Amino acid sequence: MKMILPDDLVVQNDSKIIFLIIDGVSGLPFPGKAGTEMQVANIPNMDTLARESLCGVLDPVSPGITPGSGPGHFSLFGYDPVKSSVGRGVLAAAGIGFELTGRDLAARINFATIDSSGNITDRRAGRIDTGTNERLCEKIMEKVSLGDKADIFVRTVKEHRALLVIRADNLSDLVHDTDPQETGVPPLDPEPLAKEAECTCALLAEFISRAGEALSDEPKANMVLLRGFAKHRPFKSMKKRFGLSCLAIANYPMYRGIASLIGMTLHPLTKTLDEQLTALRENYGKFDFFFFHVKDTDARGEDGDFDAKVAALEKIDAIIPEISALNPDVLVVTGDHSTPASLAAHSWHPVPAIVRSGCCRPDTVERFDEISCLAGGLGRMPTVHLMSIALANAHRLAKFGA
Amino acid sequence: MKMILPDDLVVQNDSKIIFLIIDGVSGLPFPGKAGTEMQVANIPNMDTLARESLCGVLDPVSPGITPGSGPGHFSLFGYDPVKSSVGRGVLAAAGIGFELTGRDLAARINFATIDSSGNITDRRAGRIDTGTNERLCEKIMEKVSLGDKADIFVRTVKEHRALLVIRADNLSDLVHDTDPQETGVPPLDPEPLAKEAECTCALLAEFISRAGEALSDEPKANMVLLRGFAKHRPFKSMKKRFGLSCLAIANYPMYRGIASLIGMTLHPLTKTLDEQLTALRENYGKFDFFFFHVKDTDARGEDGDFDAKVAALEKIDAIIPEISALNPDVLVVTGDHSTPASLAAHSWHPVPAIVRSGCCRPDTVERFDEISCLAGGLGRMPTVHLMSIALANAHRLAKFGA
Repeated sequence: MKMILPDDLVVQNDSKIIFLIIDGVSGLPFPGKAGTEMQVANIPNMDTLARESLCGVLDPVSPGITPGSGPGHFSLFGYDPVKSSVGRGVLAAAGIGFELTGRDLAARINFATIDSSGNITDRRAGRIDTGTNERLCEKIMEKVSLGDKADIFVRTVKEHRALLVIRADNLSDLVHDTDPQETGVPPLDPEPLAKEAECTCALLAEFISRAGEALSDEPKANMVLLRGFAKHRPFKSMKKRFGLSCLAIANYPMYRGIASLIGMTLHPLTKTLDEQLTALRENYGKFDFFFFHVKDTDARGEDGDFDAKVAALEKIDAIIPEISALNPDVLVVTGDHSTPASLAAHSWHPVPAIVRSGCCRPDTVERFDEISCLAGGLGRMPTVHLMSIALANAHRLAKFGA
Repeated sequence: MKMILPDDLVVQNDSKIIFLIIDGVSGLPFPGKAGTEMQVANIPNMDTLARESLCGVLDPVSPGITPGSGPGHFSLFGYDPVKSSVGRGVLAAAGIGFELTGRDLAARINFATIDSSGNITDRRAGRIDTGTNERLCEKIMEKVSLGDKADIFVRTVKEHRALLVIRADNLSDLVHDTDPQETGVPPLDPEPLAKEAECTCALLAEFISRAGEALSDEPKANMVLLRGFAKHRPFKSMKKRFGLSCLAIANYPMYRGIASLIGMTLHPLTKTLDEQLTALRENYGKFDFFFFHVKDTDARGEDGDFDAKVAALEKIDAIIPEISALNPDVLVVTGDHSTPASLAAHSWHPVPAIVRSGCCRPDTVERFDEISCLAGGLGRMPTVHLMSIALANAHRLAKFGA
């Protein structure tokens, strides 16, 4: 069925919308624990919010599909997560503010360790620090050139992660990742996924070989693994689509990248939840929409550490009163996907959500957790509808049809 | 919103998935009874399963739409029930293993009784036995020919049901059924639904007339009614789409037909639930996916016999522990549609479903019935998502996007 896009119905007013996105917020029951992370956590402020608000559970992409962070966030912001699919390369570039041109091919670099026989022993080079990463990027930029065939840009992202941009005419992103996603085997060749990518792959092979030579004297990071080859294509911004001027208060490159792609202003990096709160307060008069991203829950879920994820949830709960006190016209609290500690990975399970406004129809939900929210007024629906609901509750959508 | 197909995310492992499909499982409250068939039935094993599992209610096609068995089953197996629509003729051919070519037009035959004035007195010829049916098919094959205009194949399906295949160039399936679906009137002519079907209809009219002559001395089955004209078009198999080698343990031609069309291996016919169980056990090591079909609930619902449908449900409940004991990675229990005894027909009401796995988020459902399952974690969703959910729970789907 054709979905009605809110875009055509947008009206302007001076309402404020806050999306508090708790990455990987939801989970599963864990052996020896009394339920899921959200059920076990002591989160009285979120529970109060749930009681005052409209609740439900959201499918980031569609039932059974485990979303990456990209699709999970595009969906939250009202962008079709399938059509908006972008490669890691473009996200990495956007995340560090590298402006891509139409000729550019971007890829995510992982610095890795290979042994003397060429097999990968560590896909993250012992998680080198960002300072080392900066030194390695400079070294490659200094020593590696593809002559007049292409320009190369290698830029630090964070820890073992970097960005590669190749600039030339007629590049293609139909290239297989060189990261085999396992150790004990050599890196894969950059294989073309279509005939049109053959020249691109030859350039990439040359780059990889020369970068390997340049790094050969490094103790840990002596190889680059490339993945997420992607060419840039522009998105219609949140401002153009929904009339919202948006501020992203997010600290990880991936989320800054997504926010940047859809035209949000990126707040400078902050280090703590308190600094994020200050950023929100100080900029509250200057924007319509605030994307407030918290990463710890996802990271602890990925670690498989149930207790640490519970603790992260409780820490976030403590800042709810201060966000709530700003009294935004619409306050949304949800996540981009589930990250159950029991699976130590993103999962397909739907994500609980809270929508608070002055005109939300109340429901009977008393607790903010995966099971309680099933009884909520949102029911179970695709996440992509959330932005329409937020805009409606902010009185930013006109009536459809006569 | 574009739906992400699970097909592109499939990964291989050695997990096992069982779909126990209880045909027409769900119903409606019945006069003088304490609820629906599922509410009245004593089905403790299904209730236990519901308590341990993820539950919900599924719309086979979309809300308000009453599905035939074809769409109901295509949906269960993850095939869009509207796009996968196939005529009864093709299903009948597949169900008895008749291999159709691209030139063939297939139709379902009902042997029927007409009186001396040509009006139908029994649309099923007194439900003649399969032996009689075989004799009648041979008789038609012997006496009826369309010369060099077309080849004809008439094959027994079961009881009063048979298959007609006409083989010639340029046949069309845009032909109206000749079964008027009522008695006291003559059969309808095979009317073209488009100009391109005019020649086909002339051939069909000639066939019907000659078959009527050949059967004129029969006491009961003295006419053929044709419906579900359909040409063959190939489906992508379950193996190709989902990487699943599939065994169908189903005994009615319709369901064997659907299973065969999507590439399942058909187990030889079995006669009892116990024989079906044995088939499941003996083949458990040889396949990834098992379609275990039970028909009685639907048949008793169609009869309008509430008590008999309750009894059929209770009989199926008794085999649950033995299926459960195989401990499949994913066990699904649901139906292809509702068949309320109060309506004595398929209906549009959504169908309760159970999904049990090691990583299902639990919900509060304690009973397997139409009303209890509304509170389940699946919520209410189209049946077509069920296969994605089953694959996800079997860890057979990779993450979508970076």
